[in-house]
Amino acid sequence: MRMAHTMIRVKDLDETLAFYTEFLGLRVARESAIGDECKLVFLTDESGHYHLELTFNCDGRDYTLGDQFGHLAFVVDDLEAVVARVEEKKWWFRRSKPGNRSSYIFVKDPNGYDIEILQGKSV
Amino acid sequence: MRMAHTMIRVKDLDETLAFYTEFLGLRVARESAIGDECKLVFLTDESGHYHLELTFNCDGRDYTLGDQFGHLAFVVDDLEAVVARVEEKKWWFRRSKPGNRSSYIFVKDPNGYDIEILQGKSV
Repeated sequence: MRMAHTMIRVKDLDETLAFYTEFLGLRVARESAIGDECKLVFLTDESGHYHLELTFNCDGRDYTLGDQFGHLAFVVDDLEAVVARVEEKKWWFRRSKPGNRSSYIFVKDPNGYDIEILQGKSV
Repeated sequence: MRMAHTMIRVKDLDETLAFYTEFLGLRVARESAIGDECKLVFLTDESGHYHLELTFNCDGRDYTLGDQFGHLAFVVDDLEAVVARVEEKKWWFRRSKPGNRSSYIFVKDPNGYDIEILQGKSV
């Protein structure tokens, strides 16, 4: 058994792709469509070990996000460089408390999902 | 940048651990607690590449799952063996349509999250 992917439903595919590829640095591994109904995009990182599946239903439906699902987490080499980009974009973000075991920020993706960005231990 | 983990909030930690470890075969990579408030358990597969973080808030709070979050997907070598176990447990499940490009089932975890279990291509 292996962990394969996490699927999230998204409201604006272009905005979501820009967030995960241009801002976070994921790449598109494959794309498909179910007729005119639905577009699926599989994203992954350099390793290609795990995927994030974006499901975009083309009928413009809305969703309820709820408060049960948690977040998606990504590790970066230089968290402060990411913070500088977030500040430039004037996005909301929340920092880990000083002295915390790990350093991270939380941001929101264009669909409202919480995204944790962690400082990697190698730096 | 690398994909690190998906976090889900869970309602019953023991039931959830049984589902992800005994049924799905993940292993506990690490555990921690934030005082009496909260327990965190990180699960992973054999490779250890990606983690599923379970967050259990000890105050018995309830959550709204909503319909925006999608699912978590796992690949297995022998889907029919999994189906036999699901049928034995008398759990609800839904199969992929015959002739579909991939064979999978959907089940629900103890918190209501949709779980996709896919037949690996190696078999």
